[in-house]
Amino acid sequence: MVKIAVDAMGGDNAPQAIVEGVALARKDFPEIEFILYGKEPEIKKYLSDLTNITIVHTDEKIESDDEPVKSIRRKKQASMVLAAQAVKNGEADAVLSAGNTGALLASGLFIVGRIKNIERPGLMSTLPVFKGDSDGFDFIDMGANADNKPEHLLTYAVLGTFYAKNVRQVTNPRVGLLNNGTEATKGSELTKAAYDLLAASSDINFVGNIEARDLFNGVADVVVTDGFTGNAVLKTMEGTAMSMMSVLKESVKESGFKGKMGALMMKDSLMNLKNQMDYSNHGGAVLFGLKGAVIKCHGSSDPESIKSAVRQINQMQQTNVIHDLRIYFEDKTTN
Amino acid sequence: MVKIAVDAMGGDNAPQAIVEGVALARKDFPEIEFILYGKEPEIKKYLSDLTNITIVHTDEKIESDDEPVKSIRRKKQASMVLAAQAVKNGEADAVLSAGNTGALLASGLFIVGRIKNIERPGLMSTLPVFKGDSDGFDFIDMGANADNKPEHLLTYAVLGTFYAKNVRQVTNPRVGLLNNGTEATKGSELTKAAYDLLAASSDINFVGNIEARDLFNGVADVVVTDGFTGNAVLKTMEGTAMSMMSVLKESVKESGFKGKMGALMMKDSLMNLKNQMDYSNHGGAVLFGLKGAVIKCHGSSDPESIKSAVRQINQMQQTNVIHDLRIYFEDKTTN
Repeated sequence: MVKIAVDAMGGDNAPQAIVEGVALARKDFPEIEFILYGKEPEIKKYLSDLTNITIVHTDEKIESDDEPVKSIRRKKQASMVLAAQAVKNGEADAVLSAGNTGALLASGLFIVGRIKNIERPGLMSTLPVFKGDSDGFDFIDMGANADNKPEHLLTYAVLGTFYAKNVRQVTNPRVGLLNNGTEATKGSELTKAAYDLLAASSDINFVGNIEARDLFNGVADVVVTDGFTGNAVLKTMEGTAMSMMSVLKESVKESGFKGKMGALMMKDSLMNLKNQMDYSNHGGAVLFGLKGAVIKCHGSSDPESIKSAVRQINQMQQTNVIHDLRIYFEDKTTN
Repeated sequence: MVKIAVDAMGGDNAPQAIVEGVALARKDFPEIEFILYGKEPEIKKYLSDLTNITIVHTDEKIESDDEPVKSIRRKKQASMVLAAQAVKNGEADAVLSAGNTGALLASGLFIVGRIKNIERPGLMSTLPVFKGDSDGFDFIDMGANADNKPEHLLTYAVLGTFYAKNVRQVTNPRVGLLNNGTEATKGSELTKAAYDLLAASSDINFVGNIEARDLFNGVADVVVTDGFTGNAVLKTMEGTAMSMMSVLKESVKESGFKGKMGALMMKDSLMNLKNQMDYSNHGGAVLFGLKGAVIKCHGSSDPESIKSAVRQINQMQQTNVIHDLRIYFEDKTTN
């Protein structure tokens, strides 16, 4: 029985989008139990009944502009903090939140806790691939850390490999290192040192350096990078995609009848493009390397995205990925 | 009189695209003199006459996969090397090449030479902005360096400010620091230290941190970052834009008659999108911080892009940007 602790108050459209997402997910996953943290009267508005749902009422919540570490220490009754506590206490397997990213990272690190021998958990998402047979690649670290050491990138390679193998059923996942060129000699001090560690590890299938322009081309199943670069790459993807969509929209507006008719006739193609760029159907971002599943959904998540994140958590639990990671890392001698 | 040393043999479509570009530019800029380095018989094929053009014949050239530093040392008669030598010797004001980027950077550093007190020149392009009145932002360093110190980012801020002021006629250019959040306290060790230096400088108009997702939104006229991150951001833009265009194309193909008709009717809008994303109409990338103008055009440049780069070089020379930079930096006490 999978139990998910849901921060019902986090996100731009909370609690409505969150609660409706849980209600949607409940239909597809009748074996999952949900514990919803937040204002009970508001949560109940969006639920017809309480099958498989427990509500734990609390008035406190983390705001989107709260200072992460301070807020989780001061607001001990915040919905997000209580959800993380539930995982720590073994009352739930996973936390799901669309709230303040920094506060969720802090909740993961300081409440749920790191797996032994994992110094710096990383933030990971499955991003889309548009060429070949691959259905995506796992990108880690997308910004849990501002500075990383080479050893962290080796940890991310192992984390991503376990995720791709277990959760996405990829056989012998190919691990790439994001770098400023494909040649083995390329890179910054960090990536050169990380290259050597990755190449020397027998626990991963390292395929070498990859460049950011090839990320969407299916050149690897797992791509590791430091959190600063990962954050910049992810936000550049978002910014570029959004800009292109808005330029196209503006241009259609100005193009007169013919252009507008054309856009109408192309609607399916344009929607298809939008859907393919939207990686939230792969679930949320995992703060990976913790003793429990901590899933961050986008702040603007709709009910469908919340349902995808529930599916993702279910797959993580069914395939024992965190359990397997603990065996791998806890057995290692501390270095 | 502006004199441009052109590496006629560098680039995927060389010498044809390069020589035709020069011929195009010659019409718009009859006061510019061009010195073309490369195989004379091949170059002559694409020229009706030699008005304002001198050809310096050489059989040697740098290949795209040549090791940069070694190749410029060994191939002393390569077209790119000779073009850089011409600037060093005062026979030309600028080098223009669409060849091997690493070799051109090396030619700039070791042949043309750095301005005194500029430790690490940066690679800079003017990238497009899709919101508001701004016509672009200058992004530096896009990858001349794999590792940068905070002081380098201050240098880039000054370089970008001079370029935006002189060449793009921007009054009091706003300088942003690419970071993982907009708050002043955010960042890696590098960006936090750079933030303090930028905030303390009275020579630039520092507007604080900016995130990669806002790059296209006109939040700054100059954006500084280290070369590793800049390279990743630029290549992510390219990869995202190319993937979106190919998904759209594929989707139109599969959408049947209606979708194809729609695409045909939307052709102007789609071309407009492509043109707006294409920053080569702003010219090439400048290796900035050198004693002469060193301009890198994209390997796949067509004659129009070469002409844009010539226009850019002309503006740089007319507005004395390198001369002004030399006065600013050479006067500083070495630190």
